[in-house]
Amino acid sequence: MTRAAAGPAIDQALTELRDFLGDRVTASGAARQHHSHGESSHKAGLPDLVCFPHNTGEVSRIVEISARHRLPMVPFGAGTSLEGGVNALHGGISIDMRQMNRVLRVSVEDMDATVEAGISRSQLVKALENTGLTFFIDPGADATIGGMASTRASGTTAVKYGTMRDNVLGLTVVLADGRVIHTGTRARKSSAGYDLTRLFVGAEGTLGVITEVTLRLHALPEALAVAVCAFASIEGAVRTVIEVVQLGVGPARIEFMDDRLVEAVNRYSKLDLAVQPTLLFEFHGLSQASVEETARLAERLAAEHGGLGFHWETTAAGRERLWQARHDVYYAARSLRPGCECLTTDVCVPISRLADCMVETRADLDGVSFPATIVGHVGDGNFHVQCLLAPEQEEEAEAFSDRLVKRAHSMGGTCTGEHGVGFGKIRYLEAEHGEALEVMRAIKRVLDPENRMNPGKVLDF
Amino acid sequence: MTRAAAGPAIDQALTELRDFLGDRVTASGAARQHHSHGESSHKAGLPDLVCFPHNTGEVSRIVEISARHRLPMVPFGAGTSLEGGVNALHGGISIDMRQMNRVLRVSVEDMDATVEAGISRSQLVKALENTGLTFFIDPGADATIGGMASTRASGTTAVKYGTMRDNVLGLTVVLADGRVIHTGTRARKSSAGYDLTRLFVGAEGTLGVITEVTLRLHALPEALAVAVCAFASIEGAVRTVIEVVQLGVGPARIEFMDDRLVEAVNRYSKLDLAVQPTLLFEFHGLSQASVEETARLAERLAAEHGGLGFHWETTAAGRERLWQARHDVYYAARSLRPGCECLTTDVCVPISRLADCMVETRADLDGVSFPATIVGHVGDGNFHVQCLLAPEQEEEAEAFSDRLVKRAHSMGGTCTGEHGVGFGKIRYLEAEHGEALEVMRAIKRVLDPENRMNPGKVLDF
Repeated sequence: MTRAAAGPAIDQALTELRDFLGDRVTASGAARQHHSHGESSHKAGLPDLVCFPHNTGEVSRIVEISARHRLPMVPFGAGTSLEGGVNALHGGISIDMRQMNRVLRVSVEDMDATVEAGISRSQLVKALENTGLTFFIDPGADATIGGMASTRASGTTAVKYGTMRDNVLGLTVVLADGRVIHTGTRARKSSAGYDLTRLFVGAEGTLGVITEVTLRLHALPEALAVAVCAFASIEGAVRTVIEVVQLGVGPARIEFMDDRLVEAVNRYSKLDLAVQPTLLFEFHGLSQASVEETARLAERLAAEHGGLGFHWETTAAGRERLWQARHDVYYAARSLRPGCECLTTDVCVPISRLADCMVETRADLDGVSFPATIVGHVGDGNFHVQCLLAPEQEEEAEAFSDRLVKRAHSMGGTCTGEHGVGFGKIRYLEAEHGEALEVMRAIKRVLDPENRMNPGKVLDF
Repeated sequence: MTRAAAGPAIDQALTELRDFLGDRVTASGAARQHHSHGESSHKAGLPDLVCFPHNTGEVSRIVEISARHRLPMVPFGAGTSLEGGVNALHGGISIDMRQMNRVLRVSVEDMDATVEAGISRSQLVKALENTGLTFFIDPGADATIGGMASTRASGTTAVKYGTMRDNVLGLTVVLADGRVIHTGTRARKSSAGYDLTRLFVGAEGTLGVITEVTLRLHALPEALAVAVCAFASIEGAVRTVIEVVQLGVGPARIEFMDDRLVEAVNRYSKLDLAVQPTLLFEFHGLSQASVEETARLAERLAAEHGGLGFHWETTAAGRERLWQARHDVYYAARSLRPGCECLTTDVCVPISRLADCMVETRADLDGVSFPATIVGHVGDGNFHVQCLLAPEQEEEAEAFSDRLVKRAHSMGGTCTGEHGVGFGKIRYLEAEHGEALEVMRAIKRVLDPENRMNPGKVLDF
């Protein structure tokens, strides 16, 4: 139905929602505005209503009501999406999950926890203090766990600890008609039927609303080492990464920054790193001795590939400062051009092609009119170009992004390593998946026949 | 259609298949018999025809022909299924994948390989010799990679290297109508749409026929250590496992054998292990020093929990002999009762409940009339009971299995950790998945509307 025709349905839904949500449902302009977009400059989409449920039962009722009135629904977490995943393109109901932020259960013995989907990564990490365990997946932004599951997020530690795909053991999901299902079990593995957990992880709310997540946790490392190393070339840095990963007892993080980003980071985070292609390493281990053994091997490999010397961060404060700087690269890059729009790309390629892909991309950037920096989770073959744009440069940046994705596809890679499709990358999926895209569409149709779950995202119809 | 009504369709299909497969399609009694069952004593199911394709194109043609004639299809690998997964319950065409056993590509830099689905685990491991890499997933039987992907197999090394869920990067799949799709990319991670790879992994051929698999490989460890340790009690052994896993730099394998199995293994493999609940450990690492550091910690933890002393296997021959013995436990157990039938259970529970589950199960076994042994991938919370049966004890064993699965479910576990559902465990899925089972059925209906892909497996209709 059109937006105008939806008017009476929205009024009716609001009345029904008010009945059990009270002032936790709103049609206020400010709330609708806030829930119309994420952190990117993709076209905003105003929801008609915003709800703040407290539990799965309430989400189920919200979904059931919106189904009855045939309204679209969009789950909303921390609003840190970079691909417009939370924008209510067709109006309807934005379901803000942030008041569902409880830790429901932690098991130290099983190294797992069940949380409500609206808890943020930092809230979870804080709740795990003193358990000896933590949750390592860190996409940079302080996203919600539900949002991270929905985009199959990863970040700096995926090279050792995997992505949300690997760290979600089970889910509670509200389906398009309001039914509630539980996927997975608390067992570490199972062969009992189709892997619905992995189907909803990465579905960006288009197949259902994730309300609870059971997560794998990891032991806090007994010992760690952090180092930074500048390189003469991008190739040397990537070659080092490949060989370090092949050691088998890999580092917990290997992050790349290009020279322009290092310059920005030095300024933004008050560091004095050499302005060169640079790798940041973090090693986790059982003892200082074993960590240092791995780290020394990495140092030797770096030296063989044009590394200009490891700088060890030996103090907790120094390590903290370095990773905080890495954490802040998005803002550091933006500070190169205050007030700019930022388009962030997200290709991921087989690591054997990573140097080619980054070098060709750097050369491509020499021919564009906007400044850009490169940061990479290079252990995974994933890197981001931050394009810093004046409004009139957006089209040029989109063309650059198209070339970059084409380059990644030609190397066996993907258009998005961790940010998700939202509606910013729908146009790349045909080339990436071919006929398999029809299977995704078939699944979408059978689970959401009226296309009301986050419509306009992931797949086009 | 009924079997009798299918007669003319089968004749017609045979003619069409003969056209491009020549003598690689057969209706011979011996071939049909061989393809009617796996390694378990589940009711056999004779296929009408058996095909031996050489490539994905041929599989696609076979599927297209069988679709046109509305015949069921069953993919067949090494025939090592323990749940009747390969039995042609409704006749039709058995697609024997074993002649599709080529390694199509190995990338040492990317640590991945693409193989045809019919290659066996041992063929793959042999092909990887001299690359410095290997494929660690080992379900015991020398299954095919396609079969392992289809059952989401794992085995002794899952505690460190994960299951097939974690180690399959992409697939080529022939759908029910003969269309060929490629899932995943060669990039290590992706957020580009629904995770079809994980949907087909574990689907046991009910959604399509897997013809090619891209696999994650692992570096051969620079150093390893193997030890065996007897315990005063099951609880002590499991408590040790929990604490060793919590170290974070866990072992590559931790396997459990109960006292009765140790006795059988001693006899079958000519060892002289103490007849006690026993753990086998293997540690992988970058150097002998770091491996020994981990192993010594495990030794100390074992001592705190009633471990009767680590016995180190310091020679390659000794290690080989020990793991070969572990590999052969299925046959060792069967040798306790020559000529018996064997029912093998496969529950997996949260590790915090593993000791309870094993102790209660051991007590349960004290009241049955058949001998039984317990072996466990205890780092994952997964264990198998091998029930050694005379024909008249099968019903009693099924009742025992029902109790065991109920026990596992009540502890948050699953009816099958790694063997798959086949048709032996369909009856447990309702209790395990509840409403989520309807979502699985909906997916099956949309991808295989006529229920011709391995019908009668995983889901009932």
